[in-house]
Amino acid sequence: MKIRFITALIGAVVISASLNAAPAKSEKHAAAAVQFRQAMLQLVRSNVGALGGMAKDQIPMNAATLEKNAMRIEQLSLMMDDYFSVDTRNFPVETDALPGVWEDYADFQSKIVALTTAANELKVAAQQGDESSYKAKIGAIFKSCKGCHDTYKAE
Amino acid sequence: MKIRFITALIGAVVISASLNAAPAKSEKHAAAAVQFRQAMLQLVRSNVGALGGMAKDQIPMNAATLEKNAMRIEQLSLMMDDYFSVDTRNFPVETDALPGVWEDYADFQSKIVALTTAANELKVAAQQGDESSYKAKIGAIFKSCKGCHDTYKAE
Repeated sequence: MKIRFITALIGAVVISASLNAAPAKSEKHAAAAVQFRQAMLQLVRSNVGALGGMAKDQIPMNAATLEKNAMRIEQLSLMMDDYFSVDTRNFPVETDALPGVWEDYADFQSKIVALTTAANELKVAAQQGDESSYKAKIGAIFKSCKGCHDTYKAE
Repeated sequence: MKIRFITALIGAVVISASLNAAPAKSEKHAAAAVQFRQAMLQLVRSNVGALGGMAKDQIPMNAATLEKNAMRIEQLSLMMDDYFSVDTRNFPVETDALPGVWEDYADFQSKIVALTTAANELKVAAQQGDESSYKAKIGAIFKSCKGCHDTYKAE
């Protein structure tokens, strides 16, 4: 109960501290931002794999893994605003991030919040052993990934 | 106070759950492990840059940045054991991780714990506003990076 309260508190603090996007200061700065964004999303990917396998009954449901991976996705989601707030449109970087990210950055931030929320809810469900909700809450994480990729990621 | 107690608790749980290293199951598995390790260390790098700048008086000391970056380094350090426990020595992957990582994996794990501890201590100092200790605690993080790289990272 205390842990959940503090998680909610941390989430609220971060959301209230949402950044405005600002242009990268140099090509080097833009390239580093792309590298960090991609690294962060690789780590998200490394955590969703097992969740997908469990949702599809390819591997056994495991509450400890659900909790750990959901916690890590939540932590990574709380880093996203910092990395994406560097607007890299002015430099010739190789990126799958579409220009729309910075055309309506507040909307992009709302997609980040959706992921933080979905990950937090799966984490809490796993902590509580609420097995009947696991598949729906895993589904909500994948839905939030797709909800952002559909608009903001190159195919 | 509650936050610090819980952080300590999480640290203890993770340390007691230390993994044994196990060989990668395929070249694909090894390649993914290398990719995730490098992504995780990129994110660590993205968080130490500002700390180094503050320690050298190149940028102003900022307690909020210290706390946030130290928290993220701590979180990332708690992911390291999962990623490095995949022993990739049997596959022709491009990696700066030396074979010694898996020759004495318990020692490698002790280096991870040193980073978790150093990051946690800087985070707590920043939360408490203990300014006189900032530079020493930043230094301890860099020392822990070097303490691992000297033994386990290719030059």
